[in-house]
Amino acid sequence: MEAKRFCKVNVIADEAASNYSTVPSATSLKTTAGAAYLHYTPNETIGGVEFPYIPQSDAPLVADMSSTILSRPIDVSRFGLIYAGAQKNIGPSGLVVVIVRDDLIGKARAGTPPIWDYAAMAKENSMLNTPPTFGIYMAGLVFAWLKRQGGLGVIGERNRIKANKLYAAIDGSGFYRSPVARECRSWMNVPFTVPNPDLEKVFCSEAAKAGLTNLEGHRSVGGMRASIYNAMPIEGVDALIAFMGEFQRRHG
Amino acid sequence: MEAKRFCKVNVIADEAASNYSTVPSATSLKTTAGAAYLHYTPNETIGGVEFPYIPQSDAPLVADMSSTILSRPIDVSRFGLIYAGAQKNIGPSGLVVVIVRDDLIGKARAGTPPIWDYAAMAKENSMLNTPPTFGIYMAGLVFAWLKRQGGLGVIGERNRIKANKLYAAIDGSGFYRSPVARECRSWMNVPFTVPNPDLEKVFCSEAAKAGLTNLEGHRSVGGMRASIYNAMPIEGVDALIAFMGEFQRRHG
Repeated sequence: MEAKRFCKVNVIADEAASNYSTVPSATSLKTTAGAAYLHYTPNETIGGVEFPYIPQSDAPLVADMSSTILSRPIDVSRFGLIYAGAQKNIGPSGLVVVIVRDDLIGKARAGTPPIWDYAAMAKENSMLNTPPTFGIYMAGLVFAWLKRQGGLGVIGERNRIKANKLYAAIDGSGFYRSPVARECRSWMNVPFTVPNPDLEKVFCSEAAKAGLTNLEGHRSVGGMRASIYNAMPIEGVDALIAFMGEFQRRHG
Repeated sequence: MEAKRFCKVNVIADEAASNYSTVPSATSLKTTAGAAYLHYTPNETIGGVEFPYIPQSDAPLVADMSSTILSRPIDVSRFGLIYAGAQKNIGPSGLVVVIVRDDLIGKARAGTPPIWDYAAMAKENSMLNTPPTFGIYMAGLVFAWLKRQGGLGVIGERNRIKANKLYAAIDGSGFYRSPVARECRSWMNVPFTVPNPDLEKVFCSEAAKAGLTNLEGHRSVGGMRASIYNAMPIEGVDALIAFMGEFQRRHG
């Protein structure tokens, strides 16, 4: 973990034993007294696991929201610092959004490059360096699009529907299987498997012919994975479900 | 200077006395024995000043080539490290190209973030982090365009012609003036003034009406500045020269 290079890290939960198919329960988290912050990633894209709750913590809560931000309304006031790479729900890669509480600004470690020193960055209105203008422009278009859709409440409901439909199709198939515990299944990344791993490549190649692409699971875990970020409409999920039914009839 | 936060910096040349209208002569540079590197910026965009020579140095030469790279052929073998922001001659902002000599890789200061540790970056083929894909794609299109033009030799000749034409028009006008010493005038950024500073705003607003935009000088120095990077065709420089002549007839 990157933080270990700079400070003492106490790992208070590790789901390796479950093969990362679940998250620790809210009550099992033993936070460290005197910790500078508690870091977690609300949605883990490889395993398709997400926290169904925001951890309680005396220390400021720091979250990598790359694949959670803008997927639904979020209570930003619960967090000390949120950071998010743009490439999921915001815009092109090469841009990171940071939302940091005023009282946590100005505590940069000596030797921190100024572009990562929030005090220096805030002082220059986030233009300390030449900003990635095209990415910011595209993000602006995405924000305007989100508003036209009705805002994050509408988007969140749409994402809930998309995820529920897909998990219902998987669970009801008797063929496909989700490796993730029900209460912490990601709305954004939906991994699934077929009974015979030899069918995985057949599934992905036939799906691609049907116009359904990028369904390979992450190379470290295999299987299939549907990433259904904001850009994926309900109709796209419907098309995947229809293809999955058809594939099962032919290969099941 | 940023480097002062991390190491002892010996400034071996400072052209403040000339109001940054020239560069030190090649023979006047007194490099520091035992220096880790010698840093310079071959082209300075605000003043429109460029080095007509590559400094001699026992220490590895490090250059900010942001507004020099791809403007003409460059003898890369003379440099230990070249870095260049993309936003001048490469592509959209948000991308930096680094060319570093093999023997200078692996000397990162403790605590350097891995994305700035060239050894870590090289090991991962420059994909240690999620790269700015759109910017890289656009840079690829620009590189292909450069090749179709005939390569850097052709581009360099075109840039030399553009700059010579514009400086000749300025010098021959008896009205416009270049503040920069002849032997170190930038091919990329051409600042010029009019006899009466009150005419600067008139010039820029009339030029904008004629389709010639972004001619304001940097806010720290005023005047006018034509930036004629690779993207500016010779015809664009011709149009500016024609407008300058017409403006002079009306206001000279």
